[in-house]
Amino acid sequence: MKGKQILLGHGSGGQLSHELIKEVFVKHFNTEELKLQTDSAILNIPGELISFTTDSYVVNPIFFSGGNIGKLAIAGTVNDLAVSGAKPLYISSSFIIEEGFPIADLEKIVATMADEARKAGVKIVTGDTKVVDRGKCDKIFINTSGIGVLNPEYKHIGTGEKITPGDIILINGSIGDHGMTIMAERNDLNISAQIGSDCAPLNHLISEILETGAKVRFMRDATRGGIATVLTELSEGRNYGLEIDEEAVPVKEAVRGICELLGFDPFYVANEGKIILVVAKEDAEKVLEVMKKNEFGKESAIIGKIVGEHPGKGWIHTGIGGKRIIDMLSGEQLPRIC
Amino acid sequence: MKGKQILLGHGSGGQLSHELIKEVFVKHFNTEELKLQTDSAILNIPGELISFTTDSYVVNPIFFSGGNIGKLAIAGTVNDLAVSGAKPLYISSSFIIEEGFPIADLEKIVATMADEARKAGVKIVTGDTKVVDRGKCDKIFINTSGIGVLNPEYKHIGTGEKITPGDIILINGSIGDHGMTIMAERNDLNISAQIGSDCAPLNHLISEILETGAKVRFMRDATRGGIATVLTELSEGRNYGLEIDEEAVPVKEAVRGICELLGFDPFYVANEGKIILVVAKEDAEKVLEVMKKNEFGKESAIIGKIVGEHPGKGWIHTGIGGKRIIDMLSGEQLPRIC
Repeated sequence: MKGKQILLGHGSGGQLSHELIKEVFVKHFNTEELKLQTDSAILNIPGELISFTTDSYVVNPIFFSGGNIGKLAIAGTVNDLAVSGAKPLYISSSFIIEEGFPIADLEKIVATMADEARKAGVKIVTGDTKVVDRGKCDKIFINTSGIGVLNPEYKHIGTGEKITPGDIILINGSIGDHGMTIMAERNDLNISAQIGSDCAPLNHLISEILETGAKVRFMRDATRGGIATVLTELSEGRNYGLEIDEEAVPVKEAVRGICELLGFDPFYVANEGKIILVVAKEDAEKVLEVMKKNEFGKESAIIGKIVGEHPGKGWIHTGIGGKRIIDMLSGEQLPRIC
Repeated sequence: MKGKQILLGHGSGGQLSHELIKEVFVKHFNTEELKLQTDSAILNIPGELISFTTDSYVVNPIFFSGGNIGKLAIAGTVNDLAVSGAKPLYISSSFIIEEGFPIADLEKIVATMADEARKAGVKIVTGDTKVVDRGKCDKIFINTSGIGVLNPEYKHIGTGEKITPGDIILINGSIGDHGMTIMAERNDLNISAQIGSDCAPLNHLISEILETGAKVRFMRDATRGGIATVLTELSEGRNYGLEIDEEAVPVKEAVRGICELLGFDPFYVANEGKIILVVAKEDAEKVLEVMKKNEFGKESAIIGKIVGEHPGKGWIHTGIGGKRIIDMLSGEQLPRIC
């Protein structure tokens, strides 16, 4: 199929669909469930509680420094499961492809997905392909949904219901890398040697943290809307407040540079490999140490704390001794960032 | 939000996204899981075996006689689970929306989804919304993924591994209704009073069949590619053959008329509420009787049988005493039919 393009017939459900499934999807994803070519996958669930998530990926451009739409589609969904405390197991992948899209590009994306799934230890078990006429979508959109099994002990992590004043807030590295990489590529800023997307599956990092036995109160990945959105969700309507030390939040020099150039606040810029974590004070140093040993946590840092004061509000303490309130993104900075 | 349009900011993950989720999705879907606004839903799974499926819907037009894209998105995914023998439980919904899409139309679609989910007895528990710039998608695309719990006794139904010569092939009503409705609407044929999509969730019909205790060997919904595609999948590479009596397959007069007018073979036209069913010979009449009592099975019929001859091949016996071989759709008849 090399050198060929996607035809409307590849979405027909007939002969061409079957060929595409066999020669691209089954070839790379290579799971028994997909080979059966039934409409649903039959799966074993080792537990009574699961975590279930979905995301559609529409990033533009589809190939960028540090990844592509396929890497994003696996890492993003794996991370949504992992931050809920679940062990990600199964992924579905559904493609909407524009007529005329090069099959070689589709194979690159699918091969990346297979690779990331292997790294994350998840299986791609079911899928779907639709083809729309030229001009009716932008190249390719991918939906992945995911299922993970959840230890009931970790049920509180997604909502953060056990958070108490004194708890410590951590992050696993620098912010804004993904958003500014996409921005730089769109504007031909020619600095892709200096920055790249942080897109990565974080489930192994998260399970290493949980295995320490530390009291983990909350985890969430800071994607669209940046860490400001997560920190707002973490404080809004709660009976505690939070305080963030701006200078403690890692930002790469190149990212800070583009942010200043283009007028962005890194707190609002999307990440694809960053989690905000809240842990009990007595466990913070132990957790930080474990995080730093993981390849996706080398620049981990303690960035703030939960306080009893100003309930429902988060304050950022700036380097120059001032402070500003954390609020959610009100408009849209960067459409199609993921 | 009435009278308003979708803005890029509704896909930002920030303030506008939260408003849209609250005022449209949570309002209609109204499940505890969605209200939490976490990235994954935490769900109880009453069993060790699940069925997992995904589909993206890109139908054009999005509103049509007998349904809309939202009805399709629920019924289609519910049916994919139900034909595997599973009891559908949970659905995810992910939207890709074009900037400028009327929020009133989105609400209509979402209200239909909520309604169909209620009828089917499934819960919409997690979701995602992306907005793309004007011209980068065609109005709205919806992905739904679904989870059902599977009784291990029904594990063979999806693959058909227990099919044996002598088994009977049934269908729950007339073919081609969905495809020809969409075709008529696209070509302004003005016959929507006479035909409508058959789009419907069939899980209750299927559970009534299974509850009879009949030996059900195989079920599959005949969507894209029509019943010809299912019948090909049912015979290709197997150690048995099949024979279909063309005159026994129900086709509505209006549908037959448009098919003849436009040059379509109803065997290849998409359905959205039809299943092909294989049952043991001794149970066929009992199953047929139960099917006819369900609102989505009134015109059910026995259409053929499994035979020991011509393994791997299916033959259609035509009204005039001839016969033709069943083959898969080779090109694309009707892009964006679902």
